[in-house]
Amino acid sequence: TSSARPMKETVALPLVKDIMVKKVATTRAGVSVDDAARTIIKDRFNHLPVVDDEKRLIGIITAWDVSKAVALSKRDSLDMVMTKNVVTVGPDDPVDLAVRLLEKHNISALPVIDHDRKVLGIVTAECLSKLLARGPVQ
Amino acid sequence: TSSARPMKETVALPLVKDIMVKKVATTRAGVSVDDAARTIIKDRFNHLPVVDDEKRLIGIITAWDVSKAVALSKRDSLDMVMTKNVVTVGPDDPVDLAVRLLEKHNISALPVIDHDRKVLGIVTAECLSKLLARGPVQ
Ligand SMILES: C[S@@+](CC[C@H](N)C(=O)[O-])C[C@H]1O[C@@H](n2cnc3c(N)ncnc32)[C@H](O)[C@@H]1O
Repeated sequence: TSSARPMKETVALPLVKDIMVKKVATTRAGVSVDDAARTIIKDRFNHLPVVDDEKRLIGIITAWDVSKAVALSKRDSLDMVMTKNVVTVGPDDPVDLAVRLLEKHNISALPVIDHDRKVLGIVTAECLSKLLARGPVQ
Repeated sequence: TSSARPMKETVALPLVKDIMVKKVATTRAGVSVDDAARTIIKDRFNHLPVVDDEKRLIGIITAWDVSKAVALSKRDSLDMVMTKNVVTVGPDDPVDLAVRLLEKHNISALPVIDHDRKVLGIVTAECLSKLLARGPVQ
């Protein structure tokens, strides 16, 4: 019908640290794709940051990358399928930067890292879309 | 720091049909998980509605479900891994309903169907989070 009746809401965009998911599982580049898939399923999460021995971010593997490994029959090691150029944000970045980065790079999550590239959390399109529902944020 | 400086924006939430992705690939329940993975990768999309011979929605398979199939070594047929109880919306539903359904069910996409269960499009957390960036929508 033509009575579209859009709902008006005021949304105050907070900082990344206010909305990021803090408990985020990570994995290592040496594990198999099947191992990474098991971690993704256990946590009911789509994105798995890949870290080195010092727990610094070196890549990301998503359920989509697991599908890619299956499609290409390359399931031996994450190194072949993970994304190494990871787009990230800092905890004190405004959420609207995260929104713009997701849109610009056509991705669905950004690891949140500190100055030492240690993973503090992750911000996903799902976290962000929830802000639309929540209405005014303090 | 304490100077959080949240950005205030007015977002008018439109209808599902205004923001849904219209070109959506679908698949059949009889194909293998590897075939579904290839379709997911080809279209660079995370969610694949599963339809019957009359093109009516009967399930959904996502990159996450492909990971599940890999984790459980069950890659023979979609029927084992697809989700059959699909949460959907209609084209004339308000976007805030879609947001609430995604949040409530912890999912990242909703097929948009007509009264005959034919798939018209899909609305994803990624579509929705873009609304935050776009600012006021007419
Ligand atoms: C519970 S989510 C967890 C991962 C992540 N939150 C996401 O949405 O991709 C993954 C499961 O949700 C299912 N799913 C996705 N969209 C759905 C929908 N519209 N209705 C019902 N189940 C859905 C998938 O089939 C998959 O088994």
